[in-house]
Amino acid sequence: MALSPVLINGTWQAPKSPIGEFQAMDPSSKTFIPETFPVSSFKDIETAIKSSLKAAKELRSMNKNQIGRFLEIYAKNILENQSSIVKKAARETGLPEKPRLMNIELPRTVDQLRQTAEAVIDGSWCHPIIDTKLNIRSKYAPLGGPVILFGPNNFPLAFNSVSGGDFAAAIAAGNPAIAKANPGHPGTTRLFAEAALDAVQKAGLPLSTVQLLYHFNSEDGFRLVSHPWVSATAFTGNRKAGLQLKKQAEQAGNLIYLELSSVNPVILFPGAVEERPHQISKELFESCTLGMGQFCTNPGLVILMKNKKQSLFLNSLKNLFDQEPNGYLLGEQVLEELKVSVKKLINNGAELITGGEEWEDQGYKFAYTLLSISGKDFLKNSSALQTEAFGTCSLVVLTQDSEETRKVLSSLEGNLTGTFYTKNTDRDDHLYEELESVLRPKVGRLLNNKMPTGVAVTASMNHGGPYPASGHPGFTSVGIPSSIKRFAALHCYDHVSQDSLPLELKDKNPSGKMWRFIDANWTQEDI
Amino acid sequence: MALSPVLINGTWQAPKSPIGEFQAMDPSSKTFIPETFPVSSFKDIETAIKSSLKAAKELRSMNKNQIGRFLEIYAKNILENQSSIVKKAARETGLPEKPRLMNIELPRTVDQLRQTAEAVIDGSWCHPIIDTKLNIRSKYAPLGGPVILFGPNNFPLAFNSVSGGDFAAAIAAGNPAIAKANPGHPGTTRLFAEAALDAVQKAGLPLSTVQLLYHFNSEDGFRLVSHPWVSATAFTGNRKAGLQLKKQAEQAGNLIYLELSSVNPVILFPGAVEERPHQISKELFESCTLGMGQFCTNPGLVILMKNKKQSLFLNSLKNLFDQEPNGYLLGEQVLEELKVSVKKLINNGAELITGGEEWEDQGYKFAYTLLSISGKDFLKNSSALQTEAFGTCSLVVLTQDSEETRKVLSSLEGNLTGTFYTKNTDRDDHLYEELESVLRPKVGRLLNNKMPTGVAVTASMNHGGPYPASGHPGFTSVGIPSSIKRFAALHCYDHVSQDSLPLELKDKNPSGKMWRFIDANWTQEDI
Repeated sequence: MALSPVLINGTWQAPKSPIGEFQAMDPSSKTFIPETFPVSSFKDIETAIKSSLKAAKELRSMNKNQIGRFLEIYAKNILENQSSIVKKAARETGLPEKPRLMNIELPRTVDQLRQTAEAVIDGSWCHPIIDTKLNIRSKYAPLGGPVILFGPNNFPLAFNSVSGGDFAAAIAAGNPAIAKANPGHPGTTRLFAEAALDAVQKAGLPLSTVQLLYHFNSEDGFRLVSHPWVSATAFTGNRKAGLQLKKQAEQAGNLIYLELSSVNPVILFPGAVEERPHQISKELFESCTLGMGQFCTNPGLVILMKNKKQSLFLNSLKNLFDQEPNGYLLGEQVLEELKVSVKKLINNGAELITGGEEWEDQGYKFAYTLLSISGKDFLKNSSALQTEAFGTCSLVVLTQDSEETRKVLSSLEGNLTGTFYTKNTDRDDHLYEELESVLRPKVGRLLNNKMPTGVAVTASMNHGGPYPASGHPGFTSVGIPSSIKRFAALHCYDHVSQDSLPLELKDKNPSGKMWRFIDANWTQEDI
Repeated sequence: MALSPVLINGTWQAPKSPIGEFQAMDPSSKTFIPETFPVSSFKDIETAIKSSLKAAKELRSMNKNQIGRFLEIYAKNILENQSSIVKKAARETGLPEKPRLMNIELPRTVDQLRQTAEAVIDGSWCHPIIDTKLNIRSKYAPLGGPVILFGPNNFPLAFNSVSGGDFAAAIAAGNPAIAKANPGHPGTTRLFAEAALDAVQKAGLPLSTVQLLYHFNSEDGFRLVSHPWVSATAFTGNRKAGLQLKKQAEQAGNLIYLELSSVNPVILFPGAVEERPHQISKELFESCTLGMGQFCTNPGLVILMKNKKQSLFLNSLKNLFDQEPNGYLLGEQVLEELKVSVKKLINNGAELITGGEEWEDQGYKFAYTLLSISGKDFLKNSSALQTEAFGTCSLVVLTQDSEETRKVLSSLEGNLTGTFYTKNTDRDDHLYEELESVLRPKVGRLLNNKMPTGVAVTASMNHGGPYPASGHPGFTSVGIPSSIKRFAALHCYDHVSQDSLPLELKDKNPSGKMWRFIDANWTQEDI
């Protein structure tokens, strides 16, 4: 059977000297899906890089509204093709068509692209700073070369390497994108790239603005992210692969943004559990099982402080976990890694409350898994016990008092989120302050009485955190316009005349609405 | 003779098990300066790290105005001790007391600290973002651990590791600082640290907010920047050492900001040289000899496009360079490295116009050096010919036409600055656009008809650039408030009640003047 073509330089073309081929698998039936995709050789990669350089140059001198228009048309194209995209994604990932893909993830994907389009057209994202007396001006600008995008397996639409937040941000900043499909959902990614190419053409962007390869080996991936013509990489995925790419990119002086892993500690205050044990166990269960636990913000570590309704709470939680998983894992690899992680947790002292093994089924299923350990034992192996078990698997740490809880929090690595559940009626402020001061520097987003799995696409969001949750604690991958700045260089103009300045830095406000920081004040006025 | 004490945990104390000692040298007489400083063992480093963690925690919960007050008092202390600081710096660096140190660099140092104090008290630097409907809020916050500071040799005051821009930015963001003195001016650094400690005490900051070590070996430096309790490092200095630190820090997941090297291309348009050959040669000479060429923004690469007054211009420049250097190099190492660099340029095809060797003197002096090469030959070895020759040494590349100039610009690495000299009366817009599109992505700051050596401390400044000029093209090390953000983590609060939010994110604007981005608009109002 013919290999699916790759998208290079605006043309769907046969891969040059591919080094292998692969098929996606339907996780609900463990059967291969007919379409065959190439594992590209470095020839394809090199052609894509070369093509992108021309696009980078053209994009820089282009009216930014054209980039905004591309994002709008692309969003529209996705909506028009939503049923085929959702159907394909469901087949490749085992995620339910409804509500997850059709009613949640697809609208989110379209919304992100539209918000990004608005940000591009508004232009304020580029943060123009003007000091009139000295006539020095600066703003964020494209990086100069392509951005390489590696998408994760768990969000085939909203974090897809040709339709997700990283993609939108890279393009919004004015960079061409070279996407690598996640091998779990190559067909879905192809459908997106088709819709993107149509939008590229209609918006009149350079044809190499969006390019797609399906797969390549690690060595070629390393060469790609460290290539002297490449500016940046965005990677969301497993920690080991991410750290290898990080090393290669950074040694070459290239930027790389990573989202690696997170156990998202949820700390349950005694007062909270005593006040509403059933409600909290229900909220926790729902958060843990969203997408079969395959969420970056899944609560993998629950710190249960000693309280009078502890047994009741744990029983309630166990009962909820004690049911057949109502969905599939994304694939065999996720299943195997989950088995290994659960084993590792047990080998390091965690006790199984329920689950812990594969669930017999025609598809990839794993029993909802709950483990527990005392605070004292957690502290003996805290590093190993923070292993992310990607799937519905949470470790409950039973702490004796605030001091032990503080020690457990002190031992944590960087995480995307951290959550406190406190009493609604009378929060223990003293305890909150004490524990918050330990947890706050370790997480990107801090929540109170709300589970961390919802990641709103809004300006104030931080989907990021200290290493190893991400590679830089100052950046977010979700939330516009902040996420765009990751893919931008600061360009300063010193003593440059009006007619040679970019639009955003001329005396006249280009739209009359762009926010600019002029002589230390934010304003929408002209100079 | 007793070793100078190190500053750890608020106390000037004897170094623990030092592994060596060193003295600074007076570059104007090649004689050692009496005071002897320790090369610290890892024991001192470890104690400093441990102490800084406590300070980090205390700083986070402190009223930010106290940090502002520290910076103000420190600036005042420096002014009060300016004559001893300047005298010591002049002795250790060979830079003239007046005007350079007393009238330019010291006022700049004080001004930077005061601007930073204002930014801390104003608070807008932390970029509060509030989305009221979702009640999600975020802002920049301290990193959680100390920032390690390595200062360069060439600005003993304004870029000193305990008084310069990186120091001020790290503290402003709320982090404790562990400074390593530049071994070229340990005595100056000690005087600063004394003034800083006094200010720390008067402002009531944690005593370990500012700590100072003088020296340690490379291995211990690597352990320091990659230590799990350390958050970030700022390094300005030579490329080799910087890249080694970068590798170590990044592999450990720690942040590192670098300023490594730059040849700061200056492109002379035919019209400009024909219009004002003598004026441009004079401006260039003055820029090249500022601080004996020991400036990060020194114009080391001059691209002279073929024009009718080319010989006249080059003669004029040669005549200016043909005089005794009116100052000293910073030390023996700078002299030796300059010799090696000049030799490397010559070995790769550059021809000597004038200078090229040590100038016989009681101090470290090198003849003002001018080299030239054809565009064609430059392109043959463009990588080697971009070697930074730190000192007054510029390579003039003679290009035949715009096409060859474009090729030369295309071959350049990332630089801090890039400068076009164009005709005042009738600029060649077509040529400007063509060349600007090539140069712009390669430099942090673009100038027109102004030499790059002045780096104004103002919000719009970018003292940074694409790799290898710096490690991240999105950040500047000069310019407040932007420079502060390098040392900050993004902290998001999701569904957190008013009384647990930091001041900057509560409904009420804490000062009534802080700029906050509320529901997609910048405002100074309350919610």
